[in-house]
Amino acid sequence: MNIGQYSFDDFVDEVRKFHGSVAPGIIAGGIMVDIARQNLPEGEFFDVICESAKCLPDAVQLLTPCTIGNGWLRIINTTRYAITMYNKYTGEGIRVYLDADNLADWPDIKNWFFRLKPKHEQSLESILKSFHDAGQSIYATQKVQISPEFLAGTRKKHRAITICPSCNEAYSADLGELCPACQGKLPYTSTG
Amino acid sequence: MNIGQYSFDDFVDEVRKFHGSVAPGIIAGGIMVDIARQNLPEGEFFDVICESAKCLPDAVQLLTPCTIGNGWLRIINTTRYAITMYNKYTGEGIRVYLDADNLADWPDIKNWFFRLKPKHEQSLESILKSFHDAGQSIYATQKVQISPEFLAGTRKKHRAITICPSCNEAYSADLGELCPACQGKLPYTSTG
Repeated sequence: MNIGQYSFDDFVDEVRKFHGSVAPGIIAGGIMVDIARQNLPEGEFFDVICESAKCLPDAVQLLTPCTIGNGWLRIINTTRYAITMYNKYTGEGIRVYLDADNLADWPDIKNWFFRLKPKHEQSLESILKSFHDAGQSIYATQKVQISPEFLAGTRKKHRAITICPSCNEAYSADLGELCPACQGKLPYTSTG
Repeated sequence: MNIGQYSFDDFVDEVRKFHGSVAPGIIAGGIMVDIARQNLPEGEFFDVICESAKCLPDAVQLLTPCTIGNGWLRIINTTRYAITMYNKYTGEGIRVYLDADNLADWPDIKNWFFRLKPKHEQSLESILKSFHDAGQSIYATQKVQISPEFLAGTRKKHRAITICPSCNEAYSADLGELCPACQGKLPYTSTG
């Protein structure tokens, strides 16, 4: 089986290069991206929502033009293993998720997905082979309509930039009289 | 000048491939990654925080092993143009930001950074040339100590996974009796 423009094995290599390790979740994610694409009209401009911050976003970034930095990929972290690809103008989309009801025949995937065994007792090779052999059979799809605030043209663009009088750094002016960092907690303290 | 392992022009090509367009912010981000690295001990394991969701995360993903999907890159969106790279065990790090005080000699960068001109009136070529010629001179650094909750070993790992009784999908069991999607609003409605 292929994943996107890659053979299965080549995709595994791409994952290793980009993600730093071969996480089974990105292999699943790659197959999910393919399923979503097969269910969308060809040539359509789509955006993506991932419902998990783990692994799935990297599959999307490897296989589609959508990245975190260009804003076409967003994470709404429900911790569910699902991606939604949707027409960025109409909001019509397809949601693809790993359906746990389909894992009875795939104990390696089940152990990995539900974390039933410690990682060191699981075989990466067996998990990957199972994902390869299961193909598209363990996923399910759902048609969805995305809310207007996630569609192109409704997002705020080109907000004015101003200098925060507290930290002297530039920020989006409509977020208040101080930048968000100076309004609230930051995850660090300055040490020099 | 080089950016990471690339010549300036090769990095511009990599940005086009990954991000879909040559956004000046990723060029700035690439230079910021280099500055951060020069200020960290060699061979150290570091994580990254971006303070903007726009462009900067893609520079980090192109030039470091840190991605959104592997969790080594996180976005804390203050809208300030800054990245922090830090030792994931000790929390000692370096924050790099574009210092608007240094833009007097670089009108093209200033117009872009503060959005003083409509995009179609700006010249991408001139902005890129200015970033190239300004090199590392327009950024500033700050030593920081990252809060414990962002350090390795303190993050919750291997949380139990359970099936949501409402949607029948798997989620992190410690997030409540229903998955977060069924607890609250989702950005879509099911249409089939």
